[in-house]
Amino acid sequence: MHTKNSHRYCVIMCGGIGSRFWPYSRTSLPKQFLDFFGTGSTLLQMTYERILPIVNAENIIVVTNAEYADLVREQLPDIKPENILYEPARRNTAPCVAWAASHIRSIDPEGSMIVTPADHLITRQPEFIEAVKRGFDFVEQNDALLTLGITPMRPDTGYGYIQVGERIDGNISKVKTFTEKPDRQMAEVFLSTGEFFWNSGIFLWRTATILEAFDKCAPEIAALFKHCDTLTDDRQRQHYIETHFASCPAISIDYAVMEKADNVYVETVKFGWSDLGTWSALFDHSPKNRDNNVTQNCNVLSYDSSGNIFAVRGEKLIVVNGLHDYIVADAGDVLLICPKADEQRIRNIVNDAHASFGDKFI
Amino acid sequence: MHTKNSHRYCVIMCGGIGSRFWPYSRTSLPKQFLDFFGTGSTLLQMTYERILPIVNAENIIVVTNAEYADLVREQLPDIKPENILYEPARRNTAPCVAWAASHIRSIDPEGSMIVTPADHLITRQPEFIEAVKRGFDFVEQNDALLTLGITPMRPDTGYGYIQVGERIDGNISKVKTFTEKPDRQMAEVFLSTGEFFWNSGIFLWRTATILEAFDKCAPEIAALFKHCDTLTDDRQRQHYIETHFASCPAISIDYAVMEKADNVYVETVKFGWSDLGTWSALFDHSPKNRDNNVTQNCNVLSYDSSGNIFAVRGEKLIVVNGLHDYIVADAGDVLLICPKADEQRIRNIVNDAHASFGDKFI
Repeated sequence: MHTKNSHRYCVIMCGGIGSRFWPYSRTSLPKQFLDFFGTGSTLLQMTYERILPIVNAENIIVVTNAEYADLVREQLPDIKPENILYEPARRNTAPCVAWAASHIRSIDPEGSMIVTPADHLITRQPEFIEAVKRGFDFVEQNDALLTLGITPMRPDTGYGYIQVGERIDGNISKVKTFTEKPDRQMAEVFLSTGEFFWNSGIFLWRTATILEAFDKCAPEIAALFKHCDTLTDDRQRQHYIETHFASCPAISIDYAVMEKADNVYVETVKFGWSDLGTWSALFDHSPKNRDNNVTQNCNVLSYDSSGNIFAVRGEKLIVVNGLHDYIVADAGDVLLICPKADEQRIRNIVNDAHASFGDKFI
Repeated sequence: MHTKNSHRYCVIMCGGIGSRFWPYSRTSLPKQFLDFFGTGSTLLQMTYERILPIVNAENIIVVTNAEYADLVREQLPDIKPENILYEPARRNTAPCVAWAASHIRSIDPEGSMIVTPADHLITRQPEFIEAVKRGFDFVEQNDALLTLGITPMRPDTGYGYIQVGERIDGNISKVKTFTEKPDRQMAEVFLSTGEFFWNSGIFLWRTATILEAFDKCAPEIAALFKHCDTLTDDRQRQHYIETHFASCPAISIDYAVMEKADNVYVETVKFGWSDLGTWSALFDHSPKNRDNNVTQNCNVLSYDSSGNIFAVRGEKLIVVNGLHDYIVADAGDVLLICPKADEQRIRNIVNDAHASFGDKFI
């Protein structure tokens, strides 16, 4: 007999390369594997520990890139080897979700699942737990694709927004629209209406529900994993993934399914969330020292300097004089100094560094 | 029979700790031991090679601190072991000069000597050679303490100035006054008169002349080394230095002797000189890249950044965006970011770092 918990699964998406945090985060050691706040836990470990009160450890699946195999096994030694799925190529979130859902269905046809990125910050775990429990209850009783919508704290232009429609049950509503990242003015309008919530990228559904949605909305992806399910031998399946996964389109679950399906719901929540997607977001979410600087894992002596974020790997002394609102990130062989306001340039900078020096500093 | 050259000696003062270039220069590896310009030669090696056409290698004496013994032997493998004098304590330049002069006299009572810091830059060696030859000729024929005065290029407030008096011979004059570092207005007056020259800290004299001057102007220092000379055994002398050197006052040769003696002369010269005493001086003397930045031993990708000096030990990529007129110095375990205009704060910063972390980062 299954208990309720034993049908609940968690899929941690852990294949990102964290390029926006270069050089603190590197392709060889992306941000989910870093002890970002110097607490002793990496973001991946925090994600794993956060979900443990709701999902049994043996029901936690990690989807990652083959090159991070050692990092995942080292950071999550309790996870079952067969619960780590290694993507042979980076194809955004839709193929990842389809594979994980089809994997879970092959173990437990009645399974339901939460999908969460490995590199988000959630500061209030009790409220997270309650929200996720409500979400599981809802999707287990309804043919629903449920996304968590975060009550916005400010007119942020770095997030997509979800507009709520008809209220269904408590803080669960039909989704009216998904929006792209708005400009500042639009974001302020969104906030003033009270109808818009940040798209967290955290989802709940039964595996049967999401796989049906793939059938309808992204049949080419659905077909690929459906064939995989017909293989009974693990090695055959592994070989199939290795040869066919890369043929999936690189597309997000939002674009591929959520924006097309008609059974999409949002649970509006408030549990101290950040996707830690940018240095500025990290700065906003981190405790400041008395000079209003944020220091990640380093000693800082600062003079006439404020609003900076210092992120350094390893034990290092940073001495800074007369610097305001900069990112200073040191990764041993690379040092970045860039105004926080120019952080969107970092992607171009990484490209330039690649053009000049190859993979050496990437 | 001695040839003319064989009575000529060079004393390289090599005991400084280079604290103004912290953290690029560290107590454990001060600036004279660094390949400052990435040319393959350290400042000490450049000083040694610069003097070789005038002074025989076996007549070159290095005075340094005991803790730099290995560095000197490694960087100047051709120097005779007995020509390296190890100061057991830092006592500024007067005790250093008195010891070296008394050491040379014990080898060669007719010796004359040039005293030079190990960490200056001289860009035009042929003119340096000519100036030093003229200086040697002058002090060998006169009871003269000769200092080299650099024709000033700008109203620099970082140097002491020498005012010339009566002209003696070509570009050799009596010294009228030594001045402290002037303020900007005074420096401009100095420049406009044509009578003031930068005090280079490079001196020439016969050992007999300087030791007589010590007798008159700094008898307590003179007495100490006079007693040392009475000891005939090397080990006795070494023991004597180790137990008595620290009792010398810490005083510069300028204060102790040059400003008091009446046989002081200046040879005015022009050979592309800098004492490399400050980051700004280094910036001014270094080749700039097309964005007007100076890079010492590092790869730099810069965007909207100019007037900076990047000094990094080891192979490292510096990426900088929107930074102007800063010093960025990285020494592995310490990173300094400071406006060039605030470089005088670095001494205080080093003190603060010492107060907070002990010797660790000094």
